[in-house]
Amino acid sequence: MLKDFESKKREDKSSLNAQIKELQALLLSQQQLLMREKLPMIVLIEGWSASGKGTLIKELISELDPRFYHVESPKVLPEAEERYPFLYQYFKAIPVNGKVTFLDSGWMEAAVRKYLRHEITKDEYRHRIRQVNEFERQLRDSGYVILKIFLHIGKQVQYERLSQLVEDPATEWRVDKEDLWQHKEYKRFMEAYDEFMDKTGDIAGWHILDGSRHITATRDALKLITQRVERAVQEGRYQGVTSEEDFPLKEMPKLAEVDLSPTIDDDEYKKELKKLQTRISELHNILYRKKIPVILCYEGWDAAGKGGNIRRLTYALDPRGFDVHPIASPLPHEQSRQYLWRFWTRLPKTGHICIFDRTWYGRVMVERLEGFCSENEWRRAYHEINEFERMLTEWGAVLLKFWIHIDQDTQLERFTLRENTPEKQWKITDEDWRNREKWSEYEIAVDEMLSKTSTKNAPWHIIESNDKKYARIKALKIIVKALEKACDKHFQKMME
Amino acid sequence: MLKDFESKKREDKSSLNAQIKELQALLLSQQQLLMREKLPMIVLIEGWSASGKGTLIKELISELDPRFYHVESPKVLPEAEERYPFLYQYFKAIPVNGKVTFLDSGWMEAAVRKYLRHEITKDEYRHRIRQVNEFERQLRDSGYVILKIFLHIGKQVQYERLSQLVEDPATEWRVDKEDLWQHKEYKRFMEAYDEFMDKTGDIAGWHILDGSRHITATRDALKLITQRVERAVQEGRYQGVTSEEDFPLKEMPKLAEVDLSPTIDDDEYKKELKKLQTRISELHNILYRKKIPVILCYEGWDAAGKGGNIRRLTYALDPRGFDVHPIASPLPHEQSRQYLWRFWTRLPKTGHICIFDRTWYGRVMVERLEGFCSENEWRRAYHEINEFERMLTEWGAVLLKFWIHIDQDTQLERFTLRENTPEKQWKITDEDWRNREKWSEYEIAVDEMLSKTSTKNAPWHIIESNDKKYARIKALKIIVKALEKACDKHFQKMME
Repeated sequence: MLKDFESKKREDKSSLNAQIKELQALLLSQQQLLMREKLPMIVLIEGWSASGKGTLIKELISELDPRFYHVESPKVLPEAEERYPFLYQYFKAIPVNGKVTFLDSGWMEAAVRKYLRHEITKDEYRHRIRQVNEFERQLRDSGYVILKIFLHIGKQVQYERLSQLVEDPATEWRVDKEDLWQHKEYKRFMEAYDEFMDKTGDIAGWHILDGSRHITATRDALKLITQRVERAVQEGRYQGVTSEEDFPLKEMPKLAEVDLSPTIDDDEYKKELKKLQTRISELHNILYRKKIPVILCYEGWDAAGKGGNIRRLTYALDPRGFDVHPIASPLPHEQSRQYLWRFWTRLPKTGHICIFDRTWYGRVMVERLEGFCSENEWRRAYHEINEFERMLTEWGAVLLKFWIHIDQDTQLERFTLRENTPEKQWKITDEDWRNREKWSEYEIAVDEMLSKTSTKNAPWHIIESNDKKYARIKALKIIVKALEKACDKHFQKMME
Repeated sequence: MLKDFESKKREDKSSLNAQIKELQALLLSQQQLLMREKLPMIVLIEGWSASGKGTLIKELISELDPRFYHVESPKVLPEAEERYPFLYQYFKAIPVNGKVTFLDSGWMEAAVRKYLRHEITKDEYRHRIRQVNEFERQLRDSGYVILKIFLHIGKQVQYERLSQLVEDPATEWRVDKEDLWQHKEYKRFMEAYDEFMDKTGDIAGWHILDGSRHITATRDALKLITQRVERAVQEGRYQGVTSEEDFPLKEMPKLAEVDLSPTIDDDEYKKELKKLQTRISELHNILYRKKIPVILCYEGWDAAGKGGNIRRLTYALDPRGFDVHPIASPLPHEQSRQYLWRFWTRLPKTGHICIFDRTWYGRVMVERLEGFCSENEWRRAYHEINEFERMLTEWGAVLLKFWIHIDQDTQLERFTLRENTPEKQWKITDEDWRNREKWSEYEIAVDEMLSKTSTKNAPWHIIESNDKKYARIKALKIIVKALEKACDKHFQKMME
């Protein structure tokens, strides 16, 4: 705890310098070990204003090979400028296998400062603490090595350092009103830091270092990091275990039980389509101005009609306010990061709509069935995905998930039609036929997915698509209803 | 010219609708051709406020497969918020081979509006026009298909559309003061647009479309695009020709003539190093506040000491204000774009320093010698690189290029030392030995590179590095001098 922290006795400078040199050399050689073992590492440096975080990081990296590390200095922006979820910028910064990211302050500072500024409520703050724990656990479970350091200085030392900076015209600009505010509110910050560390130490423990003397802090930090790397290399890549927390789930039917007979006649289709598109267009305007983010997920059988369904939707949208993300196999730089990274980095800004044509559910379908991930990994994914989606809805996003459903006969008809129509041939590949052969395996995986991830906050919608037109109208209706509710709720919340 | 533009006679709506449907289907099938031929395409839609650019793009993409196109709506930000070069956001948006980027306004609007707002000088505007032509030529030469459309409406039509938007509470927010200002200054804008189109039509011609009736504009745009694709597919990928414009060059010595004997003694090294690092640290502060961007390029023989040189520099810098970009072989998504793309997207923000450990000069060294690009391509690169660097210095960047130089004997010594020192073995690979065998071929390529790209605004500095310490001091001195000059010049410019 910061409030009980005691500085140790002053050590001799030349001995410290010698130790630092040795540890820097050790860390340089460990960089090679991390690369060899393909271990990704995150070193988070938090601490007081003027505690010397920047100087410390400079020393940590001074002998390292720049090909294998990256320094990230995320900004704590005033709420109004933020357009992404709380953890977005940290998730974005996670390294690929074998590399290290140093963070010059991060999720702790962002959560605590916003809370003390009253820019987030007590509830939102609690959510953020839980999200941090989930974030760290997910990363650890997929093999990330996480080390967290807090650089501590007393109020008096902070006073001296800040005033020294302010008095020198060359450095005066480095002190902003946030720093001064922290100094004034030193005690409140200390309590909040202590509370935060207390609640987020389970996955990766906090290390409080004495920042009152740079050279000692440097030596201590280098010691911690090199010890952590040594342990990580010895233990090998961590394998997560399946988590057990229960999410409130909606009961889902088995796919085999779904009645695929519903149809719509042409006139009604045209009339409904026009009406729904007009309404979505209006709602898009409102969402944009209210800054509500929208995430629409499309999964379904090959040839079920996802593309056509998406086009009927996007036709109603202003191209400046949406993006479609078609999801194929991960590229190498995506493959060598935690599997949700490529979705985190594609999240929409507030007020924007993003449409995923296939999604993170690939983990529990194709990656499961083709053996692209281990059983442990796909089993864990249900829970990780539920957490990810809870984070999105807590952020305020409208999140809708569609399973576009057809039966095997209908798929065969459409495959055959595609093969026999020259301008549709590109739509059908050998892989589609191979997937078709595994229909029953897929059906088991999809049933399991629907039952385990249809959370109350982000339930699945099964869209019967033997009649494509019926499917389009049904999906658009669900979208309209959800968007209307969001616009309304948003208004209510603002009025509270 | 806009001022002579005459609307054609009104066509029948149902006939137009039928044509649009047909053309949309054609474009959908052409998407496959573009993919097959691996042709990347850029469709730029410029035009008046309220001319219907968004609506047009919506129609263009409505039948397309989202996997193969992307819509980009770059913002024209007030100058104060801009932290990157003028063309940065457009270069960032170029598609990979086989895909299409639609731009909802772009470099024309950005240049013209800033000029009319007096946020850039007449000279800067002239530069931008030249840069646009270079940008388009470079993209065309590397196989990009570029189509540029201007959506034209008369002042009266604009008045009607803007007032209709303003009068409806649901759309009022869509009209901002920029739109109203344009309407007020319609005549000035028209002249500026005409001038801009007149000066930027050589590489890819402008097509002015009548925007007064959406449906006609849609048909006409679809016609243009499908015709352009057809021509592109017929003609096949365009092969650029070597450009001839002469840049003012600094005379460079041949590598063989460079005297590699200079050394520095240890005491002086330590003293100088400390002094220079302190000074760079101060200058980094100033640059940061003055928002001057700095780009430092390191090239040189394997084992010449680039890494050590860079570390002595970064040790003096605040980690929050710089990035090191180690450049290896391009990743797939980089490989399938114009070769400068991966450097454009790594440019620093104003006020930041970025250090390239190897650079775009790979094009005329390793890519040339290993046959990773055609002779035509690497020959063209000298000129393209000179243009790229001129753009950077016109932007206001400090750009320094170092060739870290050693002789063959020194390299052999260092290679051998690396092989015999366990903790250095990772630094030496078979590839290093293979490159070494090609020393004389490389020497020819490097000599040619130095002589053809040592422009007055971005000359090469040869750093004699048989004595590594001498090399470090020499490079740091050049950096200090350049940064001091930049800080000084920046001040002078502000005073003008």
